[in-house]
Amino acid sequence: MGEPEVLREVEAVNTAFYEAFETADLDTMQDLWLDDPETLCVHPGALPVRGTGPINRSWALIMANTPYIQFFLTDVEVSVLEGVASVTCTENVLTGDDSTGLDSFGGAKAVATNVFVRTPEGWRMWIHHASPVLSAEDDDDD
Amino acid sequence: MGEPEVLREVEAVNTAFYEAFETADLDTMQDLWLDDPETLCVHPGALPVRGTGPINRSWALIMANTPYIQFFLTDVEVSVLEGVASVTCTENVLTGDDSTGLDSFGGAKAVATNVFVRTPEGWRMWIHHASPVLSAEDDDDD
Repeated sequence: MGEPEVLREVEAVNTAFYEAFETADLDTMQDLWLDDPETLCVHPGALPVRGTGPINRSWALIMANTPYIQFFLTDVEVSVLEGVASVTCTENVLTGDDSTGLDSFGGAKAVATNVFVRTPEGWRMWIHHASPVLSAEDDDDD
Repeated sequence: MGEPEVLREVEAVNTAFYEAFETADLDTMQDLWLDDPETLCVHPGALPVRGTGPINRSWALIMANTPYIQFFLTDVEVSVLEGVASVTCTENVLTGDDSTGLDSFGGAKAVATNVFVRTPEGWRMWIHHASPVLSAEDDDDD
């Protein structure tokens, strides 16, 4: 589903989302989201956060408490259904903090579903749902 | 976003999805999903499963290994954007199995994002993403 050009557009916005998180760029993060009381954000292991104000505050808090984070995205799949696009990807996350020091990093894996809506200003995030991968299974189930 | 009647339609399909799981009704579960290679299902703690065939097999496997499951949905929120609808809810899950016996049940909490697409046959599931709630925080963040 979706023209190659549209798929690239959506993937670019998805990449911009992770870059905004990596660089703790709260302004860009806010701009990437749809400004709407029904936007939805599920951070890994957490309950949902809904609406522009609470979601912006959640990112401000997370960014303030994340000295270093880097994402290596794998299995990025984009689907477009008319004006709505979904991106699923595996987030391979590298983090560091003051307690581990710059030479020691922790790694983790999460799965994200990101849903974007086409607006006159471009694609904007409607839903971000990230969840921790707890099991050792892989996705070779077909 | 969305007319009351449409919101009720979407919520009814969301309820039917959980009832199909509770009653291990694989036929109904399959009918509720969009028949498309780009459908997406993330079971709690797992990597994504994509496409009709793999998703159907994942449900068959889960249903075969779940002697008892019951969902109490809370915080159900429905949003409709043209032909696409999202439902987020907290899944309060009651399960039992042969090892615990019928008198002893385990409880768990997960958060789900369910995205449905309007088709000539009604709303069909495009994305189901469920994730375990790991933290004790609640969502009173506004």
